[in-house]
Amino acid sequence: MNEMVGLTNKVVEQTDPKVVGVELHDFAKELYPICRSITGEGIRQTLDLIGGRIPLRKFNVPTGTRVFDWTVPKEWNIRDAYIKDSNGRRVVDFQKSNLHVLNYSTPIRAKMTLRDLKSHLFSIPERPDWIPYRTSYYKEEWGFCLSQKQLLAMNEGEYEVCIDSDLEDGNLTYGECYLPGETTDEVLVSCHACHPSLANDNLSGLTVATFLANLLSKSDRRRYSYRFLFIPGTIGAITWLAQNRETVGRVQHGLVLTCVGDSGGFHYKKSRRGSAEIDRAAAHVLKHQAEPFEMLEFSPYGYDERQYCSPGFNLPVGCMMRSVWGTFPEYHTSADNLDFIRPDQLAGSLRVCAEIVDVLENNQTYRNLNPFCEPQLGRRNLYRTTGGGAIGEEINARLWVLNLSDGEHSLLDIAERSGIPFSLIRGAAEVLQQAGLLAAI
Amino acid sequence: MNEMVGLTNKVVEQTDPKVVGVELHDFAKELYPICRSITGEGIRQTLDLIGGRIPLRKFNVPTGTRVFDWTVPKEWNIRDAYIKDSNGRRVVDFQKSNLHVLNYSTPIRAKMTLRDLKSHLFSIPERPDWIPYRTSYYKEEWGFCLSQKQLLAMNEGEYEVCIDSDLEDGNLTYGECYLPGETTDEVLVSCHACHPSLANDNLSGLTVATFLANLLSKSDRRRYSYRFLFIPGTIGAITWLAQNRETVGRVQHGLVLTCVGDSGGFHYKKSRRGSAEIDRAAAHVLKHQAEPFEMLEFSPYGYDERQYCSPGFNLPVGCMMRSVWGTFPEYHTSADNLDFIRPDQLAGSLRVCAEIVDVLENNQTYRNLNPFCEPQLGRRNLYRTTGGGAIGEEINARLWVLNLSDGEHSLLDIAERSGIPFSLIRGAAEVLQQAGLLAAI
Amino acid sequence: MNEMVGLTNKVVEQTDPKVVGVELHDFAKELYPICRSITGEGIRQTLDLIGGRIPLRKFNVPTGTRVFDWTVPKEWNIRDAYIKDSNGRRVVDFQKSNLHVLNYSTPIRAKMTLRDLKSHLFSIPERPDWIPYRTSYYKEEWGFCLSQKQLLAMNEGEYEVCIDSDLEDGNLTYGECYLPGETTDEVLVSCHACHPSLANDNLSGLTVATFLANLLSKSDRRRYSYRFLFIPGTIGAITWLAQNRETVGRVQHGLVLTCVGDSGGFHYKKSRRGSAEIDRAAAHVLKHQAEPFEMLEFSPYGYDERQYCSPGFNLPVGCMMRSVWGTFPEYHTSADNLDFIRPDQLAGSLRVCAEIVDVLENNQTYRNLNPFCEPQLGRRNLYRTTGGGAIGEEINARLWVLNLSDGEHSLLDIAERSGIPFSLIRGAAEVLQQAGLLAAI
Repeated sequence: MNEMVGLTNKVVEQTDPKVVGVELHDFAKELYPICRSITGEGIRQTLDLIGGRIPLRKFNVPTGTRVFDWTVPKEWNIRDAYIKDSNGRRVVDFQKSNLHVLNYSTPIRAKMTLRDLKSHLFSIPERPDWIPYRTSYYKEEWGFCLSQKQLLAMNEGEYEVCIDSDLEDGNLTYGECYLPGETTDEVLVSCHACHPSLANDNLSGLTVATFLANLLSKSDRRRYSYRFLFIPGTIGAITWLAQNRETVGRVQHGLVLTCVGDSGGFHYKKSRRGSAEIDRAAAHVLKHQAEPFEMLEFSPYGYDERQYCSPGFNLPVGCMMRSVWGTFPEYHTSADNLDFIRPDQLAGSLRVCAEIVDVLENNQTYRNLNPFCEPQLGRRNLYRTTGGGAIGEEINARLWVLNLSDGEHSLLDIAERSGIPFSLIRGAAEVLQQAGLLAAI
Repeated sequence: MNEMVGLTNKVVEQTDPKVVGVELHDFAKELYPICRSITGEGIRQTLDLIGGRIPLRKFNVPTGTRVFDWTVPKEWNIRDAYIKDSNGRRVVDFQKSNLHVLNYSTPIRAKMTLRDLKSHLFSIPERPDWIPYRTSYYKEEWGFCLSQKQLLAMNEGEYEVCIDSDLEDGNLTYGECYLPGETTDEVLVSCHACHPSLANDNLSGLTVATFLANLLSKSDRRRYSYRFLFIPGTIGAITWLAQNRETVGRVQHGLVLTCVGDSGGFHYKKSRRGSAEIDRAAAHVLKHQAEPFEMLEFSPYGYDERQYCSPGFNLPVGCMMRSVWGTFPEYHTSADNLDFIRPDQLAGSLRVCAEIVDVLENNQTYRNLNPFCEPQLGRRNLYRTTGGGAIGEEINARLWVLNLSDGEHSLLDIAERSGIPFSLIRGAAEVLQQAGLLAAI
Repeated sequence: MNEMVGLTNKVVEQTDPKVVGVELHDFAKELYPICRSITGEGIRQTLDLIGGRIPLRKFNVPTGTRVFDWTVPKEWNIRDAYIKDSNGRRVVDFQKSNLHVLNYSTPIRAKMTLRDLKSHLFSIPERPDWIPYRTSYYKEEWGFCLSQKQLLAMNEGEYEVCIDSDLEDGNLTYGECYLPGETTDEVLVSCHACHPSLANDNLSGLTVATFLANLLSKSDRRRYSYRFLFIPGTIGAITWLAQNRETVGRVQHGLVLTCVGDSGGFHYKKSRRGSAEIDRAAAHVLKHQAEPFEMLEFSPYGYDERQYCSPGFNLPVGCMMRSVWGTFPEYHTSADNLDFIRPDQLAGSLRVCAEIVDVLENNQTYRNLNPFCEPQLGRRNLYRTTGGGAIGEEINARLWVLNLSDGEHSLLDIAERSGIPFSLIRGAAEVLQQAGLLAAI
């Protein structure tokens, strides 16, 4: 039976999900404190930690580089930020949470009244304990995010405001893990690595992608080449596409991974094409696993599938999530922390991704070498011996593969039409091929 | 934002629906008393009243003219009709309701017993107060329609019967309002104008079509040419098609309007093609308005879409109704009177038609001039400035238009796929075009 | 109106269903006692009885003949079989039920303990009174089937075991009833005739097919040629296909008939093609009859549609059943007896099959000779005379046929789209053709 198990799954199956889940969560914990943004030291530290686990190449693209309709922005770095009250007490302190600063804030050092300060403060009145996450990448601005409780505790009076940041020419940095396969046809896995201390969005994606790359790097055979991107959202995807415009046509299948650590069921957002092989593989795998799931139609808002699926590229890239961004209250707040993501959910997401890869790797088309009537499976010990009773799922899978292997149905087609899990269909194809009844096209 | 509002809707929006509704109903009231039939003075008087409101050309087609498999019939005119009892009292009187005479009755002047008269009398036993509407266009016959109560009140005895009508060589008359546009491609709007004092069927259609033509005549720009037909049912549509056989191919979209004044929700019957642009435009508009509606599949029985959708023509002509003919008890009876149609419903029907026209006029296909990745909307002030929160429907519409404007999706395609109202999608296209990001194909 | 009634239905309608049902059941009763198998005297006796009712040609194919991947097996014949206890009493007796012997058992004559005997005994613990039906065609084996009660009544001790059978070179025999039609295009009806005393599976199929062939043989006109096959399951279909490989392409429509006598509703399993004309004809007929029914997707396990629908042939052959094999507890047990099948159900199945044949025979495509607007049906007495009321289904059918007869819609297409029964649509086409308004293509 071992032949029937996918290369990827073999690795997953040899790995205790409990253990993998804890390892995934531990890696998220390592990455959590870093203050990431779309440029700067935070993303480079993050890439270094990922690079300690998988082969990773870092790319630096200088400020000012034109990338399609966009320009690579100045590099942002921050050392400290606070609001001190008249007693010199830090009432808002970047050292306690990097969410406290409006991401990409220009430097400031000033004294001002609460009244003047207020237009630079962001809070969530309905969630008085949570700090919101806000950014201002493309409009030079400064600001602080704080809990509603903190805001209410601030008395009128003068405050000392400090954001010790730089916004200067530098680089946009992203990381690529490329695993060559038997062909240069590629599977793309992309995660945004630009969010500061937010766990589900998107340390969950970063850790699952890192572990998936690690599993794949250990495979002795890969049909496809794999490219894992760890990039700043939007501008990173645009930069990567601009720099690889001539070769992105190699991408045969792609997945954006995000929000894959929370306790929600799976949501797979289809590619713009709507019925690409990656969409069908994801649907099949989700249908045959135990957790609840939903298939979502493509829409042009979301994560970096926005760029991969822009009309000039229209790549077959879907997006795997658990809870959908914006639909859970913790989204883009300090409550999206390490407690919000769970070892079991991270491990489950990794398994689903590995199973999708398994479908893609093994989704071949065969030809029944004995297409006129059924072959006599019994004399090859591929059938039950006493007639009159029922047949099992294994024999049923063989009959389906034989019946539909006319050169026009892939194994995924057969799995979909029969309702039988891909792994069983694929196992049947292997057994039949060994028996000389089937040939790969 | 004014640019985003359709030409037609602009007019509609400048018009108080309460006022328009009353005006529509008032016009129906003017038309109500006339005794129309498929030929004769009644239809000519009706066309004169319509011609007082919109540019209208009358066409006369002589009796005996061959129109495909049919022949234009003799012209019918009627002055008076009654049944008098032995006391000389009019027990059935055409002067009280023109429904009392079997439409197209041959002249008669005779005395006869009730027994002999009975085979010429039509009533509705289940609706004792209502007079039915019956016709005998193609078989020479005479008769009276009366309420069941009237019938029961008639004693045995002799009656004087008089139908003072002519059935002689003359003309079939119909009216056309032609509004030229930028192209000779046409939108056809067709109503039957042959029913006597029946309000929903079809004074509602006549009034709504007249007002729609009036609105369109005031537009400073029309992409399509518009042809409004006010014709006798069946024979009129056949005659028009026969006389315009060479040019009917210009009809790109068409609507039959009937029964659009009662209190029921909308029913749109699709063209024979089933997914013509008019069918999709109607479905879209109905989906995004507040009243209940139902889309009906094409069938070959109904109104003049029967002729427009005959296999030799197969024109993309649907039929807009509120309640469907034959499904409401008032249908083809004296209860289909001015109380049965309502100002608000007439105004609502006019608005829906105007919105459909608006979709047709503006359903163009664009090309995203920046198809590789999203363009940077922010620096064009077409995006929100602070990141991290949600985007509004307006920005969402822009993203949809950019994403699907690959030259293969019209604005209606985009509205359908996104679920966003056409007006918003069209507004987004205008804004993007002004920003130099989109070009019409 | 007689012209509108199908040839087949004419016969059915002239036949009292009560009477036909009893005749069908009586024929099943005649066939029931015979011990059939995939070869041997039992199937030949069966074919002789069928041949007494319809023209039937028997074919003998010698043991050892290669048929695709298979080989025609040795011929099996059995005279007696029993298990005697130490008192010489037959505790299991083939003379009481031919199910008692494992079908295709090799001969044996031996004494053995219950312990040694047990691996050769088959029973159904959950159904203590029923004898299971088991076979061992392709693995030389012997065995007995018995009720759980019988098994439990057997004490430890020695038993005398006798199976007086031959398994020797001989022939595989099958029967064909061929009814030539106007073309050599064929309708195939196939039943397996290899099961011993089992009524629903498949004496029901054999009797219905025999009666259907009989009805068709009496038709004075057949558009298609008909081929009825009475064959051993699996190996018989494979043998027939191997021997007719060059000509099976003539099969335009096909039905496997099985389990059509029980009290369940209809189940039609579609051909591998999924929307072949036979699939659509069956769906239409089932939709317009009174009993519950279900359409099942194709799957490669089941009856001989497995072979006809193998990818090398992919013939348009579906399978008509009432209860589906394996879903009723009586399946492949002694409880599938003459009480389990019912005269009314057999007659109902025959009628459904005849109606399907009627659709196939009459499903032609016509051209409306007057395609521009409706023709004037009234002057041809094909319409009602007084206008203003409703039209009947008969006139409606005429309008549908006229509207869709553009050369691209068959009568079945029209019946499907209109929702009107095929017989009415076909009647309308005949009337319109007689009126010179329609021509067959």
